[in-house]
Amino acid sequence: MSFVSHLACSRCRATYPAGRIHHLCTACGSPLVVEYDLERIATAVQPRDLLERPATMWRYAELLPVTGAPVTLGEGFTPLLPAPGLGERFGLPHLWIKDDGLNPTGTFKARGASAGISMAAALGVKEVGLPTAGNAGGAWAAYGAAAGITVHVAMPSDAPAANRAECAAYGANVTTVDGLIDDAAAVINEGVRQHGWYDAAGMREPYRVEGKKTFGLEIAEQMGWSMPQAIVYPTGGGIGLIGMWRAFLQMRDLGWVHGDLPRLIAVQAAGCAPVVRAILEGEEDTERWEQAETVASGLRVPMATGHRMTLRAIRDTGGTAVAVSDRQILQTMALAAAATGVLPCPEGAAAVAAVPMLREAGHLDPADRVVVINTGSALKYPREVDYPVGAA
Amino acid sequence: MSFVSHLACSRCRATYPAGRIHHLCTACGSPLVVEYDLERIATAVQPRDLLERPATMWRYAELLPVTGAPVTLGEGFTPLLPAPGLGERFGLPHLWIKDDGLNPTGTFKARGASAGISMAAALGVKEVGLPTAGNAGGAWAAYGAAAGITVHVAMPSDAPAANRAECAAYGANVTTVDGLIDDAAAVINEGVRQHGWYDAAGMREPYRVEGKKTFGLEIAEQMGWSMPQAIVYPTGGGIGLIGMWRAFLQMRDLGWVHGDLPRLIAVQAAGCAPVVRAILEGEEDTERWEQAETVASGLRVPMATGHRMTLRAIRDTGGTAVAVSDRQILQTMALAAAATGVLPCPEGAAAVAAVPMLREAGHLDPADRVVVINTGSALKYPREVDYPVGAA
Repeated sequence: MSFVSHLACSRCRATYPAGRIHHLCTACGSPLVVEYDLERIATAVQPRDLLERPATMWRYAELLPVTGAPVTLGEGFTPLLPAPGLGERFGLPHLWIKDDGLNPTGTFKARGASAGISMAAALGVKEVGLPTAGNAGGAWAAYGAAAGITVHVAMPSDAPAANRAECAAYGANVTTVDGLIDDAAAVINEGVRQHGWYDAAGMREPYRVEGKKTFGLEIAEQMGWSMPQAIVYPTGGGIGLIGMWRAFLQMRDLGWVHGDLPRLIAVQAAGCAPVVRAILEGEEDTERWEQAETVASGLRVPMATGHRMTLRAIRDTGGTAVAVSDRQILQTMALAAAATGVLPCPEGAAAVAAVPMLREAGHLDPADRVVVINTGSALKYPREVDYPVGAA
Repeated sequence: MSFVSHLACSRCRATYPAGRIHHLCTACGSPLVVEYDLERIATAVQPRDLLERPATMWRYAELLPVTGAPVTLGEGFTPLLPAPGLGERFGLPHLWIKDDGLNPTGTFKARGASAGISMAAALGVKEVGLPTAGNAGGAWAAYGAAAGITVHVAMPSDAPAANRAECAAYGANVTTVDGLIDDAAAVINEGVRQHGWYDAAGMREPYRVEGKKTFGLEIAEQMGWSMPQAIVYPTGGGIGLIGMWRAFLQMRDLGWVHGDLPRLIAVQAAGCAPVVRAILEGEEDTERWEQAETVASGLRVPMATGHRMTLRAIRDTGGTAVAVSDRQILQTMALAAAATGVLPCPEGAAAVAAVPMLREAGHLDPADRVVVINTGSALKYPREVDYPVGAA
């Protein structure tokens, strides 16, 4: 049984019926979002009903768009770990790390890929195409293999070797481009036009963000159905941030949580910080960041279809955006590992590195309950793990 | 509240009181095991009580030796995934993969390290030492960091780079030796003698195997409190296999499961197969395998303190042992990935590669429910992931 009422344009509110293939709004070109019949959900399920459900993101079935059996590899419901050692160092006694490295393919991208491939399969899709900075490609390739769907991936030629290798191992077709994720998008667009691939680019299909939404659902459940005061999130395309914003709004409408939404704080790399610049300059959308460069390959997203909504999510929740240097990122990987037992990926380390800066600038307060999201396993970045070791 | 009654020698049955530091049996030099008051457990907890517990191995608290809060990073309760694509290819319609790559530090070693470090902390230990083929070192380093315990690791100089790097990032002291895990043990033994480190070598401390036991508990729970007919397990030191054997015996004594124990099947690499040789030759213990060599670094264990018990577990359950070549291992990584969405580590791929051989030899039957254990994420083996891609 589906609780989806329809799809709606995130900007002009044009509506579209569920159960058919949609991409961007045909009226204004903006991303579509899935809308649910929350009143019906409120009578169908209560938080206490979730307790006995599978320890994956699919425990929140009523708030997800898939009706049949999802394509699952055990994604989501990752640990929310207290980080007292880091908290003491940063003057934030109520600090948690959400470790999304414990996912299939080692990153949070599994959430979006599980939701996206499940919906593609339900819609009868045989071939999908997506551009990626690297990790989304690996995740979609894995779920495509599990579902028997052919996956076409385009990624920068200097994306992490692990991403190219995993895509190939899962049987995906990989094209590398001398450029960034938006250059890779041109390759995919061509395949979509010529071969009818299902366009699975971030926010160009409406279901990946629903998978990412489960970040917010899990954080609320794992905190005993309450919300933290702030969530610090490493932001490339920004879809996880949009997803959390939607999750908290939906849970508040359902009466599952109460009070102010968590301040959503975007962390980017100094070498590619379009969201930070747009927040500082008060812009409604990002402009392409030229000569983007950072060791955190997942943050090397110079522009994205989802950035307009990302900026709304940040402003709507009273959040902010901040950039950290590659040096900070690399030093923080080993620092966080030794203080917590979690060795974050460079993107997760960027989020941790931002915490003391946010504290100093007054964006985080010692009374705040703060969740930092580690989006992946450092194992995907063997060169970056070696750096701080060699330099120590 | 602890349900541990005492510790007992696995061979001469000499008993030791709980709550103190113990290593090998002082009477005969064999490993000790933890014994529980199963009657008291049977009245204290039922399988249905577990449903609402945390989705980690600590949901089985009554069957674990730790009484206070464990040192946890979210280990265990990993997905048991149906593998219909592989099953069809192998003529085994009831085939599952237990994906233990979704663990902290990316391998099943997190189970033993979480239990071992939790007990070390409870016993007041400040410094532990262990020899490792690689992954156990990374896991103990991570949990040591989380617990504030100093970890000394000795590993082969040609262990995977990821293992050396993660140990260093977690702040462990790493010594590399020109040799294998048993050569590394000499370094640790020296530290134990000279500096009083807590000896955390496999089966020389009694709690790691209790963590590994949760493999069996989870498989039974995830199969609706029943047992599969066979479990195919990549075997280095063999502790996971010993742990599962103990788990199934304890669950049967508790009345949680009924019938025959699963046949425990050990898979080794052709270049290091002491358990396979001992099974074939009817020996009660293994002899050191000389010139051990395999791409599956976790299987490069030429002899181990736990091998005598491993052989007993295999024989007691009617299992067997089989060796696969490195070529089979490498080819199976990509084959398994494309068929399932799970890219196994070389050790997990060895177990998958053994399945058609076991089927052909009559050790597995189409009517059997068969669980293959993938012990870790392929991300720790970037060179091996690249091989089958390049050769494809």
